[in-house]
Amino acid sequence: MARILVVNPNSSRDVTASIDRNLDPVRASMSVDIDCMTLAGAPDAIESQADIEAVVQPLVALMQANPAEAYVTACFSDPGLALAREVLQAPVVGIAESAMLMALGLGYRFGIIAILDVSVRRHLRYVRSLGLEGRLAGDRPINLGVHESGDNSAVERILEVGKTLRDVDGADVLILGCTGMAHRRELIEKELGLPVIDPTQAAVVRAAGLISLGYRRAA
Amino acid sequence: MARILVVNPNSSRDVTASIDRNLDPVRASMSVDIDCMTLAGAPDAIESQADIEAVVQPLVALMQANPAEAYVTACFSDPGLALAREVLQAPVVGIAESAMLMALGLGYRFGIIAILDVSVRRHLRYVRSLGLEGRLAGDRPINLGVHESGDNSAVERILEVGKTLRDVDGADVLILGCTGMAHRRELIEKELGLPVIDPTQAAVVRAAGLISLGYRRAA
Amino acid sequence: MARILVVNPNSSRDVTASIDRNLDPVRASMSVDIDCMTLAGAPDAIESQADIEAVVQPLVALMQANPAEAYVTACFSDPGLALAREVLQAPVVGIAESAMLMALGLGYRFGIIAILDVSVRRHLRYVRSLGLEGRLAGDRPINLGVHESGDNSAVERILEVGKTLRDVDGADVLILGCTGMAHRRELIEKELGLPVIDPTQAAVVRAAGLISLGYRRAA
Amino acid sequence: MARILVVNPNSSRDVTASIDRNLDPVRASMSVDIDCMTLAGAPDAIESQADIEAVVQPLVALMQANPAEAYVTACFSDPGLALAREVLQAPVVGIAESAMLMALGLGYRFGIIAILDVSVRRHLRYVRSLGLEGRLAGDRPINLGVHESGDNSAVERILEVGKTLRDVDGADVLILGCTGMAHRRELIEKELGLPVIDPTQAAVVRAAGLISLGYRRAA
Amino acid sequence: MARILVVNPNSSRDVTASIDRNLDPVRASMSVDIDCMTLAGAPDAIESQADIEAVVQPLVALMQANPAEAYVTACFSDPGLALAREVLQAPVVGIAESAMLMALGLGYRFGIIAILDVSVRRHLRYVRSLGLEGRLAGDRPINLGVHESGDNSAVERILEVGKTLRDVDGADVLILGCTGMAHRRELIEKELGLPVIDPTQAAVVRAAGLISLGYRRAA
Amino acid sequence: MARILVVNPNSSRDVTASIDRNLDPVRASMSVDIDCMTLAGAPDAIESQADIEAVVQPLVALMQANPAEAYVTACFSDPGLALAREVLQAPVVGIAESAMLMALGLGYRFGIIAILDVSVRRHLRYVRSLGLEGRLAGDRPINLGVHESGDNSAVERILEVGKTLRDVDGADVLILGCTGMAHRRELIEKELGLPVIDPTQAAVVRAAGLISLGYRRAA
Repeated sequence: MARILVVNPNSSRDVTASIDRNLDPVRASMSVDIDCMTLAGAPDAIESQADIEAVVQPLVALMQANPAEAYVTACFSDPGLALAREVLQAPVVGIAESAMLMALGLGYRFGIIAILDVSVRRHLRYVRSLGLEGRLAGDRPINLGVHESGDNSAVERILEVGKTLRDVDGADVLILGCTGMAHRRELIEKELGLPVIDPTQAAVVRAAGLISLGYRRAA
Repeated sequence: MARILVVNPNSSRDVTASIDRNLDPVRASMSVDIDCMTLAGAPDAIESQADIEAVVQPLVALMQANPAEAYVTACFSDPGLALAREVLQAPVVGIAESAMLMALGLGYRFGIIAILDVSVRRHLRYVRSLGLEGRLAGDRPINLGVHESGDNSAVERILEVGKTLRDVDGADVLILGCTGMAHRRELIEKELGLPVIDPTQAAVVRAAGLISLGYRRAA
Repeated sequence: MARILVVNPNSSRDVTASIDRNLDPVRASMSVDIDCMTLAGAPDAIESQADIEAVVQPLVALMQANPAEAYVTACFSDPGLALAREVLQAPVVGIAESAMLMALGLGYRFGIIAILDVSVRRHLRYVRSLGLEGRLAGDRPINLGVHESGDNSAVERILEVGKTLRDVDGADVLILGCTGMAHRRELIEKELGLPVIDPTQAAVVRAAGLISLGYRRAA
Repeated sequence: MARILVVNPNSSRDVTASIDRNLDPVRASMSVDIDCMTLAGAPDAIESQADIEAVVQPLVALMQANPAEAYVTACFSDPGLALAREVLQAPVVGIAESAMLMALGLGYRFGIIAILDVSVRRHLRYVRSLGLEGRLAGDRPINLGVHESGDNSAVERILEVGKTLRDVDGADVLILGCTGMAHRRELIEKELGLPVIDPTQAAVVRAAGLISLGYRRAA
Repeated sequence: MARILVVNPNSSRDVTASIDRNLDPVRASMSVDIDCMTLAGAPDAIESQADIEAVVQPLVALMQANPAEAYVTACFSDPGLALAREVLQAPVVGIAESAMLMALGLGYRFGIIAILDVSVRRHLRYVRSLGLEGRLAGDRPINLGVHESGDNSAVERILEVGKTLRDVDGADVLILGCTGMAHRRELIEKELGLPVIDPTQAAVVRAAGLISLGYRRAA
Repeated sequence: MARILVVNPNSSRDVTASIDRNLDPVRASMSVDIDCMTLAGAPDAIESQADIEAVVQPLVALMQANPAEAYVTACFSDPGLALAREVLQAPVVGIAESAMLMALGLGYRFGIIAILDVSVRRHLRYVRSLGLEGRLAGDRPINLGVHESGDNSAVERILEVGKTLRDVDGADVLILGCTGMAHRRELIEKELGLPVIDPTQAAVVRAAGLISLGYRRAA
C-alpha cells in the first residue's frame, strides 16, 4: 500500500499527535498508509521567518531519509515546498495551498483564520502568487501563537473571527490557518454553519488523489 | 462502503464504458464504490447549448432516483450542476471544474484541449466565473466532435494542439476537454512530457475526498 | 417598424404589466414597437435554480413562435440567454447583462440591490464571468422574494440597502436586481441621489440600438 | 425632439461629413435630432498629445455655446470628456468608451484597430482605467494617420490587422479606432465575418438611450 | 551638477515654499540641484478638472523655458504629464505616480489620504490605469481643499482618515494626496506608526535616480 | 556618509567585481558609500532552489556582521529578503523587486530576460505575488547559466530574446534577469532602442532614496 509521509516541521510532539488523530477519517476511507513525523530539533512553533528558514533544509533532509509515495509539509507557511519539489521524486504538497484548492470547491469566497498579524501579510502575498485573490473573502488573525491557538481559551476568539469572515467579508468556507487549531474543525462548522477546512486533511486527501492517478509531481 | 454515482449525460454507452475503465485506478486505491450510468434518452453527444439544456432536468432526476454519497456529472460543460446542488443532499461535482482545481496543483498555467470553437468561448466565461483566468495558459480546439475526438485519427490533432498549448501558450499541465478523448491521457503525457488531466478521474478523486472528510456539499 | 419582444419568464401578469409601463419612456423616444408577453405555465416567480431551469426551453420556444427584430428576457437571472442566442436569428439580450453594461457608463462602481442571498452568490459568478468584477462596488440582498420586493412595505428596505451600497461600498450607480422592484427607479434616484437602473429599460434601449445599427447577434 | 450634438474635434470638414453620413441609420430609427459640428481652429487631425490638449478647452466651449440634450466627442482619444462632464448639465459621451461598452455586448473579446503605435499605448492605459482589460483581445496599429486611414489604399492594411486580431488574438468583435476609417464598417464586417463597431454610431445610440431614460449625466 | 526642476502648478507661493522645504533631506544626500518654481497665473489651488486643464499647457511651456535634467510636476493630479513627456527631452515624473511606485516598496497595501470626494474618483481610475489596484488598500477624502488641508485644524481629520485606512482597509503605508499636507509626514508617521509618503519627495528621489542611471525618459 | 552594503550571494568574485563597476554612475551622483561584498562559501552560481536555500542564512548573517544604512541582496531570485527584513533594523531591498518597481516608471509593459526555464516559472509567481502581472509583457529565458550569461557568446541570444519581448510581447522596457549579464545594459539599450534595467543599479538607487528620506524599513 502506498505511503504518505506527513512531516510536522515544528518539534512539538503534541501538535504531531493532534495532526495524526485528525487524519483518522482519511485512513478509514482510503487505501493508503499515512505516517506522521515530528521534525526533531526544529523550533517548538513556526511563527517567524527565522523559524521558517530554520526548518527548510532539515525538513527536506528528513523527507529524503524517509521515502514515501507522497509528502506533506504540515505547517501553514508551507516551508520548504520549493526545495522539496526540486529534490524529491514524488509529489510534495503544502497544507496551505492544498487548503485553498479544496476551499475553491467548497464555497465561492474563502476566509482564512490566521494566528498572527504577520501571518496575514505572508498569506496575502501567497494567495496572490497563486492567482487566487479573486476568491479570497478575507484573512483575519486571532492574535495567538501556534500553541495558544489550540487551547480551550482560544475557541471564543476563533469563533468571533470566523463570524466576521462570514458576515462582514462574505466568506462561505473557512480555512484554519494553523495546525494548532485544526482539531476544532467540527466545532466551528457546527457553530458557524459553514464548511471548515483542516489544511492537513485537505493535503493528505489531495496527496492520496495524486498517488491514485499516478502523478509524480505536484506544483 | 460509500458510493459515488458518475452520470454520463449523453446517451452513448461507449463513452460511459470508456469513462468507467478510466476510473479503475481510483477503485484500486480508494475504498469507495464508483458506479457509472448513461443518461438514456439524452443526445448522443453534448455539443450545442440545446444539448446542454436538454439534459439538465433528466440528469438531475436520474441522480435523485439513484441516491449516492456523491455525484459526478461526466460532461465537460458541467450541465445541471447548479440545479443538482440545489436539490440533492450530497456533494455534486462537475468534471470541468474538478479538472481545473486539480490542474492548479499540478502546474502553474493550465491549457485546455477543447473539441470545438464554440466550446472555447463557453470555457472562457466559465474559467473567468471561477476567478481562475490568471492561471489559464490557453484553450484551443481540435475542431472535432465528441465521438470523433476519441477516434485514433484524432490523436495527431490532439498532440498538435497540446504542443501549441505547451510551447506557445506556456502551459505546464493539460486538461482534456471532453470525455471522448479522456482515455488518451497516458499517451499524451508520454508524448508531451506534461501532466495531463482526465476530468472524470479528477472529479471522482475529488468526490472521494469530500466523502472521506464528511463534507455534505460541493460548490 | 421594427419590433422588440420582451418576455417576462415568470407567469405573473402583474409583473408583465409593470414592466410594460416602465417602457413607455422608450416608446416615446424611439421608433420601435415594444411588445411584452408573459410566459404562461412558468413559475409565478423565478427565485430558485429549479425555477430558472424550468423556463429555459419554454421561454425560447415562445420567442421562436413570435418573431421579432430583437428579444429581451426580462428576468434578472438572464435565463435561457445562451440557448436563445443559439437558435434565434436576431439579437437576444438579457436584462442583467444589459443593466451592467449601462451601469459602466453611468458611474464608476455599480451596486446591485438583490432580492435574496442566493441571488447574490449567482450574481458574483455572473459578474466575474463577464470580467466586470473590477467595477462592482457591492451586491447586497433585501431578503424579500420577487413579489414582496414590489410591495410598498419593501421600499424602506430597498432604500436602506441602497444607502449601504452607496456609503459603505462606494457605489455611484445602482442596479435594481429584480423586475419586481423596477418601478421604484424614480423614487430611489430621488432619495439616494444616484442614477438607478431598471434592467428591462436598459435592455430595451440596448436592443433598439442594436437594431438601429443593423447588428444581427448580441453576445 | 431632443437633440444630440456630435462634435468632431479636428478641423476637417470631410471627416465631419463622413461621421454625419454614418449616423443616418440612427436618424431613421430613433426620434432624435443629431447635429454634427466641426471644431474650427482645431488641428486637422488629432494624433499627438499636443493635439489632444489643444482641443480640450475649445471643444467644451463649443458645446457650452450649443446647448443640447446630450453631447458626443467624436475623436477616439475621447478628448475633453472629464472637463465637459464637469461643466455641462447633460450627458457627455466619448466615442472610445462608448465603442467599448457596445463591444462588451457584441462579443466576448474585443479587438481595436488603432491608427498609430502611440495610440495603442494610450488605449492600453484607457482600457485598464475602465477595468475592461480582461475583455480586450488585442490592440494593433495600422500605422497610418487619421486621414490616410480613410483612403482606399488603407483598406488592405485594415483588413490584415483585423484578421490578426481575429485569428491570433481571438477577438470576436472589432472596434475601428479612428473616425477616419469608420465608413469601412460594412466592408470589414463582410470580409472578416465579425461585428465591427463605428465608435460614433455606438456613442450616438448610447446618448439616445440616456436621453430616452432621463439620465442627466454619463460617467 | 544635474538639475531637477520642480514646478508647483498652482500659483500659491506658500505651497511652493513648503514643497521646497520638504526637499532639504534630498539635497543633503544627493548630488543634484533641486529648484522649485511656481506657475504664475495658474489657479490658486488645483481641485477641479477645469483647474487641471487650465495648467496643462502653461506648465509644459514653463518647463520648456527652463531646461533641466529632469522635471517634476508637483500636483497630485499629475497634470500635463503626457504632454510634457511628448515634448521634453528629459525624464518628467508626476508626484502621484511616483508616490505609488515608492509605496509599492514600503508596504504591501497602500492607502491614499485624498482631499475631496471628486479626487477619490479620479484616483481610482488612475490607480487602475497603472494596473496597481491590487495593491491599493483604500482611498478616503478628508473633505478639505488644497489650502485647508495644510492648516493646523486639518491635522485631526488627517489622522482620523489615516487610522481608518490602517485599521479598516488594511493599509501598511500611506500616501498624502496633496502637496498642501505634505509637511505633515513626520507627525503622521509618529502618530500612526506607518511609513508616510510625501509625493514630491518620492518624485524628486525618483528623478535623481533616473538621472544617475542615465535614463532619458520616464513613463 | 551613509553606507549601502551590496552582497553578492554567490561566491564568484568576478560577478561581484562586475556588479561593483556597474555602480560607479551611482557613486558619481549620490552622496553615499556603496560597498560590494561576496558571500564566501556560497555556491558559485545561484540557479536552483537548493542554491537559494543554501545562502539565505549565511547571507543574512553577513549583513548582520556588517552594519550599514541599507542593504541590497544582489541576486535576481531575491534570496533571504523576508528573513533579512525580519532581523535587520534598516531597509533591505532585493534587486528583482527593485528592478520591477523601476520598470513601472520607465515603460508600460516590462519584459524580463531570464537565464533558465526554471527561473521563468519562479518569476511568474513572484510577479504575481507583487500584484504586477498586469504590467508584465513577457518573461523569456536565454537558457544559459549565470556565468555563461555574461560571456560574449551570450550577447546574440540576449538580443534575440529582447527583440521577441519587444516585438511579440509588446515590452517597452527590459529587465536583465541576472547579475551575470547586467554589464550589457548599454549595449542592449543601443541595439534595441528600449530602456534596459540593471537590477542592482535599480536597487542601489532605491536604497539611496530610502536612506535620503529616512525610511527605516523596505517591504
